[in-house]
Amino acid sequence: MIRVSIVGASGYSGVYLIQALSSRPDVSISVITSNSNAGKKLSDFFPLFAKTTPKNPLLSEIKFSLFDEDLIGGSSDAVFFCLPHNESSKLIPAVLKKNKDVKIIDVGADFRFDDVSVYERHYGKHNAPELNGGFVYGLSDVFYDKIENSQFIANPGCYPTGALLPILPLVFKGCVDFSFPVIIDSMSGISGAGRGLKLQNLFCEIENSAKAYNVWTHRHLPEIKEKIEKAFLDSPPHQTGKLMPDVIFTPHVIPVSRGILTTVYLKLNKGLSKENITAIYKNFYCGSPFVSILNNIEDCNIKNVIYTNNCHIAFEMREENGGGSCGSMIKIVSAIDNLGKGASLQAIQNMNLMFGLEPDFGIPQYSPYP
Amino acid sequence: MIRVSIVGASGYSGVYLIQALSSRPDVSISVITSNSNAGKKLSDFFPLFAKTTPKNPLLSEIKFSLFDEDLIGGSSDAVFFCLPHNESSKLIPAVLKKNKDVKIIDVGADFRFDDVSVYERHYGKHNAPELNGGFVYGLSDVFYDKIENSQFIANPGCYPTGALLPILPLVFKGCVDFSFPVIIDSMSGISGAGRGLKLQNLFCEIENSAKAYNVWTHRHLPEIKEKIEKAFLDSPPHQTGKLMPDVIFTPHVIPVSRGILTTVYLKLNKGLSKENITAIYKNFYCGSPFVSILNNIEDCNIKNVIYTNNCHIAFEMREENGGGSCGSMIKIVSAIDNLGKGASLQAIQNMNLMFGLEPDFGIPQYSPYP
Amino acid sequence: MIRVSIVGASGYSGVYLIQALSSRPDVSISVITSNSNAGKKLSDFFPLFAKTTPKNPLLSEIKFSLFDEDLIGGSSDAVFFCLPHNESSKLIPAVLKKNKDVKIIDVGADFRFDDVSVYERHYGKHNAPELNGGFVYGLSDVFYDKIENSQFIANPGCYPTGALLPILPLVFKGCVDFSFPVIIDSMSGISGAGRGLKLQNLFCEIENSAKAYNVWTHRHLPEIKEKIEKAFLDSPPHQTGKLMPDVIFTPHVIPVSRGILTTVYLKLNKGLSKENITAIYKNFYCGSPFVSILNNIEDCNIKNVIYTNNCHIAFEMREENGGGSCGSMIKIVSAIDNLGKGASLQAIQNMNLMFGLEPDFGIPQYSPYP
Amino acid sequence: MIRVSIVGASGYSGVYLIQALSSRPDVSISVITSNSNAGKKLSDFFPLFAKTTPKNPLLSEIKFSLFDEDLIGGSSDAVFFCLPHNESSKLIPAVLKKNKDVKIIDVGADFRFDDVSVYERHYGKHNAPELNGGFVYGLSDVFYDKIENSQFIANPGCYPTGALLPILPLVFKGCVDFSFPVIIDSMSGISGAGRGLKLQNLFCEIENSAKAYNVWTHRHLPEIKEKIEKAFLDSPPHQTGKLMPDVIFTPHVIPVSRGILTTVYLKLNKGLSKENITAIYKNFYCGSPFVSILNNIEDCNIKNVIYTNNCHIAFEMREENGGGSCGSMIKIVSAIDNLGKGASLQAIQNMNLMFGLEPDFGIPQYSPYP
Repeated sequence: MIRVSIVGASGYSGVYLIQALSSRPDVSISVITSNSNAGKKLSDFFPLFAKTTPKNPLLSEIKFSLFDEDLIGGSSDAVFFCLPHNESSKLIPAVLKKNKDVKIIDVGADFRFDDVSVYERHYGKHNAPELNGGFVYGLSDVFYDKIENSQFIANPGCYPTGALLPILPLVFKGCVDFSFPVIIDSMSGISGAGRGLKLQNLFCEIENSAKAYNVWTHRHLPEIKEKIEKAFLDSPPHQTGKLMPDVIFTPHVIPVSRGILTTVYLKLNKGLSKENITAIYKNFYCGSPFVSILNNIEDCNIKNVIYTNNCHIAFEMREENGGGSCGSMIKIVSAIDNLGKGASLQAIQNMNLMFGLEPDFGIPQYSPYP
Repeated sequence: MIRVSIVGASGYSGVYLIQALSSRPDVSISVITSNSNAGKKLSDFFPLFAKTTPKNPLLSEIKFSLFDEDLIGGSSDAVFFCLPHNESSKLIPAVLKKNKDVKIIDVGADFRFDDVSVYERHYGKHNAPELNGGFVYGLSDVFYDKIENSQFIANPGCYPTGALLPILPLVFKGCVDFSFPVIIDSMSGISGAGRGLKLQNLFCEIENSAKAYNVWTHRHLPEIKEKIEKAFLDSPPHQTGKLMPDVIFTPHVIPVSRGILTTVYLKLNKGLSKENITAIYKNFYCGSPFVSILNNIEDCNIKNVIYTNNCHIAFEMREENGGGSCGSMIKIVSAIDNLGKGASLQAIQNMNLMFGLEPDFGIPQYSPYP
Repeated sequence: MIRVSIVGASGYSGVYLIQALSSRPDVSISVITSNSNAGKKLSDFFPLFAKTTPKNPLLSEIKFSLFDEDLIGGSSDAVFFCLPHNESSKLIPAVLKKNKDVKIIDVGADFRFDDVSVYERHYGKHNAPELNGGFVYGLSDVFYDKIENSQFIANPGCYPTGALLPILPLVFKGCVDFSFPVIIDSMSGISGAGRGLKLQNLFCEIENSAKAYNVWTHRHLPEIKEKIEKAFLDSPPHQTGKLMPDVIFTPHVIPVSRGILTTVYLKLNKGLSKENITAIYKNFYCGSPFVSILNNIEDCNIKNVIYTNNCHIAFEMREENGGGSCGSMIKIVSAIDNLGKGASLQAIQNMNLMFGLEPDFGIPQYSPYP
Repeated sequence: MIRVSIVGASGYSGVYLIQALSSRPDVSISVITSNSNAGKKLSDFFPLFAKTTPKNPLLSEIKFSLFDEDLIGGSSDAVFFCLPHNESSKLIPAVLKKNKDVKIIDVGADFRFDDVSVYERHYGKHNAPELNGGFVYGLSDVFYDKIENSQFIANPGCYPTGALLPILPLVFKGCVDFSFPVIIDSMSGISGAGRGLKLQNLFCEIENSAKAYNVWTHRHLPEIKEKIEKAFLDSPPHQTGKLMPDVIFTPHVIPVSRGILTTVYLKLNKGLSKENITAIYKNFYCGSPFVSILNNIEDCNIKNVIYTNNCHIAFEMREENGGGSCGSMIKIVSAIDNLGKGASLQAIQNMNLMFGLEPDFGIPQYSPYP
């Protein structure tokens, strides 16, 4: 039995972790914390958990606690942190002091950067830089081999997950002409903004609307950029002296509750055919039960991945002489569930890998439809 | 291993059955039929099933077949029929001829009525009246004991499920004053109308709208009425000579994809308190892992049951002297997922019972949120 | 030129008044108040009013003010109050002291009741009971003759507007058998809850959901009840000794931004045909440019009236021997825009009548579609 | 009185023209055609036009006709064509034969291209190339001076309107570095697909989803490209020998009924500041009552322009040394209503100009909110 605790369990990613783990026979939930709701029963705060005749009486009765490192350290094999940035890095050291072997999966941003100075430029002073080097970036379908041996996982951001899964294979294989920027245009569901009370997230303000925001300054840009740069430096045809990739990222919100659709524009190196690209993707993700390459770009939509840990990818190319003076281009579209693949279910995939389980153990394979 | 086939698998309830059964280690899907899509791969028609690296290769490659009684009879322990009315009753006899022991779960209307003449008044001539008596009405949380011993289940309609679960316990316990009608006001998601191409179901026509339809003539009214009448005749304080219940039902559609919210108005017999009613419900459903009684009527909403087999029930009463001249009344609200509890997941619950499994084996316990 | 001011202009009904009046060549907006946003430009707070090249420079530059009776009294021929209850009754006396002839249209609840004690039972102590008798209930299509001569209008609530327009003609004409209750089942768009920051109104919490609330206690019930009782007492076949009408009202919220769909259940007196009822409605509303009787109940939906001052009404009857033991019943459905007919546009219709204009002067006749 | 006819009046742009023109005292509607609905009353087909007491009895009684050039030619001063491509070019010559002075506004694609061969490459053989030269491209806020003197207007496509309004001023002023492509990423409401019965436009299929489509091949790309190229050739710093602009366009659909949000990526020539760009826009559109420049990119959303003829534009720049190796870039966002500015209301703006009226005569200035 894997005993897990969830710190910050009253937000959307926390409650989805509880829901997704509740069906696991091999997992028990020890502690769920919420400083603002401590003392309340989970099933009172989220009546979806109400059960007059509970299958799992524990879950029906469990209450939110205040954060308590003794309690958590003593009763957990793994702890998920679902907190605003700069919070988990305050608490993780305390838990480790109580239980040095506990596995940590941080769903927040604190340990996602290799370079702490980049983190600090965008998020402010880091609370535990000494721990940063121990964390592995938990983009599970790419870095699964490092995750299997790790005690500490930094779960990727939702936009970075949707952007990096289609981009990284092409960078690793040296397909991208970086004289042209990597352009990433994403649209996210409203749950990406969390459960906080903001005027702009009221139903009447956002339904039948759509907008761009933080178009040059979103905090997920440096995260995406660092991982592309690292892949670029590791990629075979790398020449010294070449400019570093220019990454341009534009987030939008659209009136759906969940999901991210990402459209990527890349300039390809010469001589790559549709078949080449398909083969690269299929080869790269041949071991992944969650990433799939679709033929038809319209099939690559949010509804087909919602409530799953799947990432669908489809692309279309413009040939070298395909009508534009800028040459051979590719548009790649990816679809994920921002709270599933983009947060809680990828966190469980990481947990599975950390505990030596199959990556898809206990994770839904297909979206309910419609 | 339970080998199942699904006849009529390209509609919403069929595809949801496939999705819900796909995670079952004890179930294999043998045949899925769709006359209009025969020969197409499931994963081409519903790209949500696309998997470059499939966990379940069978499901990635399975194709829709034409209906074929030999094929289905020979390879199935259970067959689900998800067809328009008057269709399953043509096909079931053929399957039984090939395999007399196969278990049948008809998600359609053909065998839901005890009284074939009522069926014929609303649906037209019945194709297999000789089989009708063998079917048990599969309202699982009420009639589970009969279902356990049955080979043939008529899965209830979606509106009847949402209406009968809150009404029947009060009728069985003799709480209802039938000098007043049973008034049922329901609102359903658009998926209740199926996947057919109708102008009124286009996004632009129904989003930001709502309407009533078939306000005196919906086919689910006679189904609800027959079951209430039967419970009435079986209920303890029944007196001969009393009028039969008058049941009034108004369906509406609202712009949600799934879910039914039902508001029931009943006149109560004198002397019943809130505590009495709560006790009756909790007692009646004490063995059911799916029906829950909530305290707060606002918590009883569609979002809290979506993608599950749960039924949430809440109520508020007006006392005898509570301000209205018509005396003691109760308003009961129930929430279900029309495709889950109202169709495919209740069908699986019935399958579980028919095969001697726990009713909730392999069925999601909680809604993903939000 | 009619100079108008709007007190409480930063909520949904206030901003809709500004938008709707902005196209009127005969109206100028003098003062708009918002205590919480005083000093901000309207076009900064609501960027929909941004105009680089404004047609109406005044509106582009106008700022929210604090409430100031001198300013408002001195610059207004009419003042709209769009405030929470118990607020307008504090401010109206001050404005009248400065300008005894100013016309007042209170969009809030303070002066909607003939009987102040009923108001106080549901809303708390009244701040200006001495003014209450001067107010006319502004259900314009019914009480237009009294409105034409009035200085003070209490604009009806949104639910009462949707309920009373279909009910009152049948009461006035003595069609209703009040031994049976008047049952009103309404579903409202989210804007009915206003623009306040409430968890339950976040997009993710209410989209794809629906719920009932305040099922016995909504404050619009006593408002509806008082107006039905009054019509009952005024109706021709009234007999002394008869019980007063029992009115039962259930509000729901559904995921649309605007609109109210109301389903009314009435028991009819004997001998009324469909033709009789149609004739009664058409005769009653023959002078109204806004209330229309539709043949098809499905056409009577929110989308067909959104952004208008229209009320669509349709009905279907069950004959005396139509299958139910409770006899002849009628279901009537009405559709309105809760912010249009249910608030701001009916307020403008009232203003038109108060100033001797045609009721529909400057009011949109038809919904934009879709 | 301007007598207008609408050919193809049963689709979304046709019915919106009727609704928008119905409030004009100076316009009368003569003929509305719909070959598939000929003989039906408008108010039966679109019950939103039902009026028991009509203000405009003509509109309540008007019926769809078959196309008839005698009828239309004889009773119209202006004719709007709202037809699929290759249809209006068959009918316009016939109408002109009957009435050589009638003004024509083609809302479809047939006459949008200067170069007929480009049209034919994307739409098939042109039915009336001899008329093509007489048409002016009706992007009213840019080409108003040519429109004022024209008898024939080709109303722009919806995506081109949303893209060209923010792009053209910067091209005309020589701000764009065309060594980099013009990248246009748009998301459209579902009404852009028309009112046809397509599975993908069913509510259940598209709500809570989003997708890209026709990512290299959408027919609006050549339209956008031709107009940018023409502006490029006319722009001051044009040097011969320079490559023609490379235009990349990606359309998406999102679950809103109306609206287009467009994000444009441009490389700017050196030395341009935020103030320069703002001044260029404000100067360019100083005479336009419909195009506005907003400071805050989040305010530039669909909800703020819905049901209007407005175009909101906002932008943010990345400085030359702003972190990316590709240098100074600008992201511009525009928001329009695809059926308003993108079709019917821009058509009315064009009609106004053709008849010597103010461009905004009788056109709504502000969105109703929310």
